[in-house]
Amino acid sequence: MEKFDVHILGCGSALPTLRHNATSQVVNVREKLFMIDCGEGTQVHLRRSQLRFNRLNHIFISHLHGDHCFGLTGLISTFGMLERTAQLHVYAHPELERLLRPHLNFFCKGLPFEVVFHPIDPGKREVIYDDRSVSVETIPLRHRLPTCGFLFREKPTPNHIRRDMIDFYRIPVYMINRIKNGEDFVTEEGVVIPNARLTFPSDPPRSYAYCSDTSYLPRIAEQIEGADLLFHEATFAEDNAARARQTQHSTAAQAARIALDAKVKRLVIGHFSARYEDEKALLKEAKAIFPDTILADENLTIPV
Amino acid sequence: MEKFDVHILGCGSALPTLRHNATSQVVNVREKLFMIDCGEGTQVHLRRSQLRFNRLNHIFISHLHGDHCFGLTGLISTFGMLERTAQLHVYAHPELERLLRPHLNFFCKGLPFEVVFHPIDPGKREVIYDDRSVSVETIPLRHRLPTCGFLFREKPTPNHIRRDMIDFYRIPVYMINRIKNGEDFVTEEGVVIPNARLTFPSDPPRSYAYCSDTSYLPRIAEQIEGADLLFHEATFAEDNAARARQTQHSTAAQAARIALDAKVKRLVIGHFSARYEDEKALLKEAKAIFPDTILADENLTIPV
Repeated sequence: MEKFDVHILGCGSALPTLRHNATSQVVNVREKLFMIDCGEGTQVHLRRSQLRFNRLNHIFISHLHGDHCFGLTGLISTFGMLERTAQLHVYAHPELERLLRPHLNFFCKGLPFEVVFHPIDPGKREVIYDDRSVSVETIPLRHRLPTCGFLFREKPTPNHIRRDMIDFYRIPVYMINRIKNGEDFVTEEGVVIPNARLTFPSDPPRSYAYCSDTSYLPRIAEQIEGADLLFHEATFAEDNAARARQTQHSTAAQAARIALDAKVKRLVIGHFSARYEDEKALLKEAKAIFPDTILADENLTIPV
Repeated sequence: MEKFDVHILGCGSALPTLRHNATSQVVNVREKLFMIDCGEGTQVHLRRSQLRFNRLNHIFISHLHGDHCFGLTGLISTFGMLERTAQLHVYAHPELERLLRPHLNFFCKGLPFEVVFHPIDPGKREVIYDDRSVSVETIPLRHRLPTCGFLFREKPTPNHIRRDMIDFYRIPVYMINRIKNGEDFVTEEGVVIPNARLTFPSDPPRSYAYCSDTSYLPRIAEQIEGADLLFHEATFAEDNAARARQTQHSTAAQAARIALDAKVKRLVIGHFSARYEDEKALLKEAKAIFPDTILADENLTIPV
């Protein structure tokens, strides 16, 4: 199966602690790295992860709270010192470019690569990135300022060709990819061998949904339906439901309810409030509603 | 002796590593905390140090390279979430306020305390802070952009009064502080007991000099002469002397030469280049010239 992993670099909430870093994740799709959010210190946590810096070309920022973007300038500055030349694409609310440009111009003067900002409208559901392996689509969320999540959808891979049929029909090498992509095969005698006989389907394309930060928002279930993995924020437990409502965050139970409604395969909860000494209570609360739940943690890698 | 300690929060150079944090230190003078530089992640390293956030009211920034100031906005933002009310004073090149204000206005809207920027002219030697315990004076340095170090000079403490003299002359309580501060004592019989007979001198006031980042600059020796502790950058060893010259940094040998010329009591070297696996070679090089040298390290506390 092609690589499709989520690496958690940080899963704390606004107040950083010694247990959790500020928010950042890296999604590895077939060795292309996509970063989601970039809290303070992300460049060091990325280094610790041993992911390869030069495979990272796209950064998606969910919203403009400091714990989701204060690490960007440092990361870009370090990329400059490492003599990166490839463009770096940043997808965020347009306000971010207005805020960051003066800092990049001053602190990262003479950067050997280009930083390309792509303004996104967090209130709109749209595809903001697309290549032959994956597409990324915004998930409008509800938080104290414009915020969206991100839905990574893997592209279907070609069918697998049957080894025994290659031998049996003596299929020439130049036909292999064409058959994988759906063509029939015509023998030297002019007999048409239908594609279905020569191939078997590849694994169905997978998807990963990232929803943070957000209050409980039942309508997102429809958009992320059937996702293989859902990361949903669970800043609080139900005993702090009022505080969750007030700060427009979610409880662990609410995250689990979204997972259940959306019929996702697995749920990982994160963005934990600094008030919790550990997250056992959050996990218990979520599992009671959606058993296939795990806790995010720094340095955790989750296959989608 | 009154408290006068230096806490190293980070002593790496521009490229952060897993071994060293970006530059930041806290100077504790009689339980008032003064921060020097504030690289990315400083707020987390400060938390780890267990120094009390609310004792920190003054931050001095040596120069506007990212590894010396990228942590400021995050620190200020966290102070806001912790409901700090006391003013925070930031002493830096005036350009810093121009760059940071838009970020504070956006990311730290409604901050419950005031951030007061004090513009400093890094090219001028002047006292920029003064209270009854300590004064702070700039040390003009030479780096790729305007840079200064900081010289912390403890104020003299009153003389100690001799316990046996209090008893012998039955000195009343209200006279104790006056005698400590230099008054003579007159007995009921009108006999004048000279102050020198009643007191012995307190410890001489101490001083701490911070010099980073800078190329080798012999003229600073005169300004920091006799300092009890000197922190001097030693980004490179002598085998990289050309690189040090080119990037306007110092070698360990050059740091030691400054310490020797300035007749300081002890030297601590830091701001280590990421190229060194460990800093043994730097220490050896410095000690050959100035034996009383130690290496800076994260979480190290050095009494001045």
